[in-house]
Amino acid sequence: MTKIEEIQNWLIRQHCDGALISDPKTIQYLTTFYSDPAERVLMLVVFKDEEPFLFGPALEVEAIKDTGWANPVYGYLDHENPWAMIADQIKARKTAIDRFAIEKSQLSVERLENLQQQLPESNFDTNLTPLIEQMRLIKSADEIEKLKIAGKWDDFALQKGFEAVQAGKTEDQVAAELQYALMQNGIMELSFPSLVQAGKHAAEPHGATSERKIQTNQLVLFDLGTVWQGYISDASRTIAVGKPDDKSMDIYQVCLEAQLTAQAAVKPGITAEELDKKARDVIEKAGYGDYFIHRLGHGMGMSEHEFPSIMQGNQMELQPGMCFSIEPGIYIPDVAGVRIEDCVYVTETGCESFTHTTKELRYVEN
Amino acid sequence: MTKIEEIQNWLIRQHCDGALISDPKTIQYLTTFYSDPAERVLMLVVFKDEEPFLFGPALEVEAIKDTGWANPVYGYLDHENPWAMIADQIKARKTAIDRFAIEKSQLSVERLENLQQQLPESNFDTNLTPLIEQMRLIKSADEIEKLKIAGKWDDFALQKGFEAVQAGKTEDQVAAELQYALMQNGIMELSFPSLVQAGKHAAEPHGATSERKIQTNQLVLFDLGTVWQGYISDASRTIAVGKPDDKSMDIYQVCLEAQLTAQAAVKPGITAEELDKKARDVIEKAGYGDYFIHRLGHGMGMSEHEFPSIMQGNQMELQPGMCFSIEPGIYIPDVAGVRIEDCVYVTETGCESFTHTTKELRYVEN
Repeated sequence: MTKIEEIQNWLIRQHCDGALISDPKTIQYLTTFYSDPAERVLMLVVFKDEEPFLFGPALEVEAIKDTGWANPVYGYLDHENPWAMIADQIKARKTAIDRFAIEKSQLSVERLENLQQQLPESNFDTNLTPLIEQMRLIKSADEIEKLKIAGKWDDFALQKGFEAVQAGKTEDQVAAELQYALMQNGIMELSFPSLVQAGKHAAEPHGATSERKIQTNQLVLFDLGTVWQGYISDASRTIAVGKPDDKSMDIYQVCLEAQLTAQAAVKPGITAEELDKKARDVIEKAGYGDYFIHRLGHGMGMSEHEFPSIMQGNQMELQPGMCFSIEPGIYIPDVAGVRIEDCVYVTETGCESFTHTTKELRYVEN
Repeated sequence: MTKIEEIQNWLIRQHCDGALISDPKTIQYLTTFYSDPAERVLMLVVFKDEEPFLFGPALEVEAIKDTGWANPVYGYLDHENPWAMIADQIKARKTAIDRFAIEKSQLSVERLENLQQQLPESNFDTNLTPLIEQMRLIKSADEIEKLKIAGKWDDFALQKGFEAVQAGKTEDQVAAELQYALMQNGIMELSFPSLVQAGKHAAEPHGATSERKIQTNQLVLFDLGTVWQGYISDASRTIAVGKPDDKSMDIYQVCLEAQLTAQAAVKPGITAEELDKKARDVIEKAGYGDYFIHRLGHGMGMSEHEFPSIMQGNQMELQPGMCFSIEPGIYIPDVAGVRIEDCVYVTETGCESFTHTTKELRYVEN
């Protein structure tokens, strides 16, 4: 059964006539075609009992056909009304009043209003998002192969970043070196801008790489990821330049123990919140609980914003094929920040990591 | 009057009690704080007669305060319900049934449903998007200064790209060189991934930079942009490697004439569609009308997806301070593609370009 057939079966069970799919990543997942059309409209329309069609900017039609998409594709020019054209194609296929499922997590209120205006007899109350999230939750062997390749490039980038670290260089310069090394190898897309933060700057867990200079006797935090054929990597490491102070060294060891403890605890049946607690207990016991201010991890695959979310309150049981990050962090304002992260996939008996860079503290000479 | 006061006055005129602002770029425009929170929630709540507040991930609270934001800011942890917390803060300030304006172009249906669930007595029918678009349409002198700096970096990047072009190199390698040159100068953020396309590959106007090798006697199309303090640049140039065939040379000259004609025609009072027609007429007269399959340009400022849209059907009159691209393109499948683009701002008498790289065809030796 293809993924589109899976959606068709679901539509029948939900008594829906069609699905209007607008998230570019969902469209890539279902068709292999990816484009972020920004303010332009790209939509996949799946019917319970008709062939699906793709609708998008005229600019993209050839690229869609090049992916091997064998069903109809319709393009629109910038001055045309895409909503009227989508509605016309739907009406050409269906005559009854319709129920459509939409991706509520992604479709904007304005776009829903445009659809309602064009299809005033139709009902758009059904949410497709939970089905898509469920489908994307368990990765196939093919998806895991792509994630492994993205992970190898992440290991490569970390290595290049470590080699570039030197007291006196800016965080930006280190990020530039590792990103250039990736591009020289044809890896042009990152899953997010590479993060390099030194010393107390790393205590801002969502700060950006900056012009700040790395100094000796500091920790330097890396968090970076690549994209391979639409699948991402994401890993964090923290290394030492010279001899950081005792507090920095202590939080590193606590964070490492938390990370290793959680990673060793992954197996089918444990819940997401139990796994979060494995790491959180280690950090709380060491007295740093107030400085671990985010969830243990996020699901990942085609993006770093998938399920399962590894956090308190999520009682989802882990199953083979789920992929997520394990990334405890300790951020002590005005002192230092540490985060250590691998992304893993659940196996029958435990988990395997997509990245393999050592997590033992690595020292760089000044 | 501050921008937030402008919104407050609008709310009073619209008989609304508050505005729920969720577009990260709008939040940056109003507060200077920027973060893309992805699936986390970042919201600015503006009341008609109370001080506004920011609500976001606990991770971001310190960074928000660092921008000088002097009003309240509230953070939430990953396992907490942000919608309940936002509603609690609203209820703490207001008791009457409320009317809220929302950014319908950005807010997802799911997020609106979350708000409706928490604030069931409130009305969310009013759309804030048109006001924000109107406010962002006319750039201030300060905004234009930032756009000029971003433009200078775009000229720099084009120059580095031209220097890197050589028959036998891949498109990716050229993009890598120019992006590395930017990063070495501390320009870490691009407005979009740099596009380098050679020969017939450039006839796919929305294709991506690839592993294809540049060959001699080809045109090479560049389209790239940088970000400076939240403001973008965006420019395209097409250059020649060796001696391209006559057809390629012909479409270059036609595209250039179209671009220059349109740019010379910009002045207050001309409509967006009249400007589009200036370029389109040149291309149609030369017999290539069917190969110019997008609008002439898009508004730009904090992103390349702003108003005014320079296209057929848009009768908006241009005014001083509006900023947009002028980018005719001719794409002949299996032959070649040309696009030439400057972004400009309208002055009292015409327009000024943010980029100054020559548009006369530049030749690179093999």
